[in-house]
Amino acid sequence: MIDETTDGEIDRVIAAAAAAAQPLAATTPGQRASWLHTAADALDKAAEDLIPVAARETQLPAQPRLRSELVRTVFQLRLFARVLEDGEFLDAALDHADPNWPMGPRPDIRRAMVPMGPVLVFAAGNFPFALSVAGHDTAAALAAGCPVVVKAHPGHPELSARTRDVLVEALARAGAPAGTFDMITGVRAGVTALRHPALAAASFTGSAAGGRALFDIANARPRPIPFYGELGSVNPVLVTAGAVRERGRAIAEGFVGSFTLGAGQFCTKPGLLLLPAGHGLDAVLRGSVESVSPQAMLNDRIADGYLAGVRRLRENSAVTVLSAPGPGDDPFRPTLLKVAAADFTRAAEELGGECFGPTSLIIEYDGEAELRAVLDALEPGLTATVHAEDAEIDRVRTLLPTLTRLAGRLLWNGWPTGITLSWAQQHGGPYPATTAPGFTSMGTAAIARFLRPVAWQGFPDALLPPALREDNPWALPRRVDGIRVAGRETDR
Amino acid sequence: MIDETTDGEIDRVIAAAAAAAQPLAATTPGQRASWLHTAADALDKAAEDLIPVAARETQLPAQPRLRSELVRTVFQLRLFARVLEDGEFLDAALDHADPNWPMGPRPDIRRAMVPMGPVLVFAAGNFPFALSVAGHDTAAALAAGCPVVVKAHPGHPELSARTRDVLVEALARAGAPAGTFDMITGVRAGVTALRHPALAAASFTGSAAGGRALFDIANARPRPIPFYGELGSVNPVLVTAGAVRERGRAIAEGFVGSFTLGAGQFCTKPGLLLLPAGHGLDAVLRGSVESVSPQAMLNDRIADGYLAGVRRLRENSAVTVLSAPGPGDDPFRPTLLKVAAADFTRAAEELGGECFGPTSLIIEYDGEAELRAVLDALEPGLTATVHAEDAEIDRVRTLLPTLTRLAGRLLWNGWPTGITLSWAQQHGGPYPATTAPGFTSMGTAAIARFLRPVAWQGFPDALLPPALREDNPWALPRRVDGIRVAGRETDR
Repeated sequence: MIDETTDGEIDRVIAAAAAAAQPLAATTPGQRASWLHTAADALDKAAEDLIPVAARETQLPAQPRLRSELVRTVFQLRLFARVLEDGEFLDAALDHADPNWPMGPRPDIRRAMVPMGPVLVFAAGNFPFALSVAGHDTAAALAAGCPVVVKAHPGHPELSARTRDVLVEALARAGAPAGTFDMITGVRAGVTALRHPALAAASFTGSAAGGRALFDIANARPRPIPFYGELGSVNPVLVTAGAVRERGRAIAEGFVGSFTLGAGQFCTKPGLLLLPAGHGLDAVLRGSVESVSPQAMLNDRIADGYLAGVRRLRENSAVTVLSAPGPGDDPFRPTLLKVAAADFTRAAEELGGECFGPTSLIIEYDGEAELRAVLDALEPGLTATVHAEDAEIDRVRTLLPTLTRLAGRLLWNGWPTGITLSWAQQHGGPYPATTAPGFTSMGTAAIARFLRPVAWQGFPDALLPPALREDNPWALPRRVDGIRVAGRETDR
Repeated sequence: MIDETTDGEIDRVIAAAAAAAQPLAATTPGQRASWLHTAADALDKAAEDLIPVAARETQLPAQPRLRSELVRTVFQLRLFARVLEDGEFLDAALDHADPNWPMGPRPDIRRAMVPMGPVLVFAAGNFPFALSVAGHDTAAALAAGCPVVVKAHPGHPELSARTRDVLVEALARAGAPAGTFDMITGVRAGVTALRHPALAAASFTGSAAGGRALFDIANARPRPIPFYGELGSVNPVLVTAGAVRERGRAIAEGFVGSFTLGAGQFCTKPGLLLLPAGHGLDAVLRGSVESVSPQAMLNDRIADGYLAGVRRLRENSAVTVLSAPGPGDDPFRPTLLKVAAADFTRAAEELGGECFGPTSLIIEYDGEAELRAVLDALEPGLTATVHAEDAEIDRVRTLLPTLTRLAGRLLWNGWPTGITLSWAQQHGGPYPATTAPGFTSMGTAAIARFLRPVAWQGFPDALLPPALREDNPWALPRRVDGIRVAGRETDR
């Protein structure tokens, strides 16, 4: 059991965050970059303390999983430091006064991003480092200049508390204002905090049911705030006849590796595999699944939800079993199911949702019409994958508009699990993938969720933020009178 | 009375929009720019037909108001054509595969914006051209590549129908797919359309009550969609002692001109004027207000709401009248009220809201503490204005963080009415100014509301969208491996 943060303590934590908002907004991107580097160093240094706690609380293997997740977490903090050093996130634009502007004389007007204010981050359970206390949302919001309050995930309470201490200490040492970062615990505390009037935005990674409930609370506030929820995804993988022919075995093995990775507890787990009828891969798939050792699930709630989900899928009379644990087996051995395309299309609502854990459903399609009917019946998600041969490019091209409608990230001959972080990453998509399809929750662009634009009209240079001063003291890339002007980076 | 679009007709219109989504998404920015130019030409050509209809239906003067609004509307269409020609709106980023990426080997991943899909635009009543059928939201959504269905405003039904015909004809002539644009009418039809599963986003400009109701409906959908509501704003104007001393009369006259412009029926009308106690401007203000001729209100609903709002303000015993229509006067002569800062702060909820029409409230503050208390009691909005002297810059600087919290656009020695459109414009702010504080509803950046990012991972060049192909066929500005690369524009 973890202690629920009391209402008084929630008030204190959020008041401190609110008090930190203005001092934080007045810091330079360079200052915040140095805090993120200090935090990254501190996390790195605490690895030997933190990883064993994480392993004990989450049942995830210390090696290689938790070790590489910590590397990723440290990288995330440094990546946002680089975003700050780059400066384009400020989206600075200057339009000088123009008496000849076609719609009528234009005043001097200049626009840049400012931090939104205090952000509540709901930590995820499946990435106890990378999407938790010092995780990606925290890094993005701190980079934006927003105070952060994390609602800890109950799955790793001691790790959360220790990580919180590392981060609070590092930020204080680096010179961040008091109140820049803190943590609360407990479901009720999260809801109370989400209703707090001083909050400016919230982010969440977790289940569709939990995320939707919080989204509804954020929108029902007297003053609604942006709620960036990443709720789940089924991640279909489409395999063409040519790909089966050329490398069916490799695809089957890659698929099994991807859907069973981390016991299938990833939002990018491929939950549907669309195979052409007559693929002849049943034996390979079955053998591959049976060679996977069962892994412990993160916690009982997820384990129970998983077993119930698999049971529901198997209750559908059109679904057959390719491989599943027998009566005496570990119930968390991977389960692979199969259904004909026409049957899937008829029951897409029941069969096409996410089942979080080591299971996936193969859909066998016979011809283009069946394939299209399946794709049209799918709900949008985070990813959609195609396995095809170069000779099939023209045929795949006709499917791309449909796949684009379905997902925020499209993959070619790859697997959706294992998300890189870079400038071009996109982790998000139409609902239910996320509640805010115009944004990403991973990669450098994730900082945009915690910024809002402000314009200054007719201001004297001395009162403008540095990003908008005439002499461009931060050497930012900017748009001046409609023309892009390079900053420091492309100047060199 | 206008006819309510039937459910069958709504289905037909939205199905046509949904069917147009993929063909539209496949068009080039250059094609869409040419449509916008064709639409602009057609509107321009129809001016002599449309302006008299607008004048009759809205009671707004044909000259200069409606004529200049049509100029603005035509300009908006051309401005978004320029956004399309510029190409930065696609936010193209390419990260090549990198085996040495610090968090682990990176696949090739590329990201760009795609259109969200069918957009429902709720037209505004106070700008029958610029924020209506062929208005700013329509221009932005079409530029983004989204089919648009406008829900017409009931205040100008014939103008709406005629504008719709001009736009439909121009788009067809320019080669836009059938279903790219259409219109529905009636409150119930708007709600029915907002619940339609094929819709991807909606935008709205209007009252706080109406906008909140629609926002709630958009969020309560089984699959919520982004709802960009611009709900209203009180637009405080702060005048310093120095400014009163140097140019009190000019400020008083400018203020009266701004709050009575268009009978105060602008979302940027200055609803609060903060004056230092002892300003001595009562007589000037009164004289200035009394020299303004009353104007007809847009419609009975707005007129009734205005009179009720003024009545509520006057019922507060701390509020005194500087100038108001007498018993026999036109009730829409401007009303100017006054209250002491301490009284305002105690009753900020009742006194600090928007009252749409030709009224404003002067708040007299005695010293810095009273001023700060007033600012802290205000709700956020679209704009906040400062009138001050250069010698007071250091004092004003200490107030700027509070003003920035309050608004999306800050003005120095200007008036918030009369919004220019350019790259740096920002029209939006924290709730209740808008339901989506990360965006603007005016200016070039407004296109972002109707776009969503998609990443392509590991794709062959032949299947990538042109924006992301290796040879950059559209000569776009892009970010390649983290470095900005100039496009055509800065190449010249």
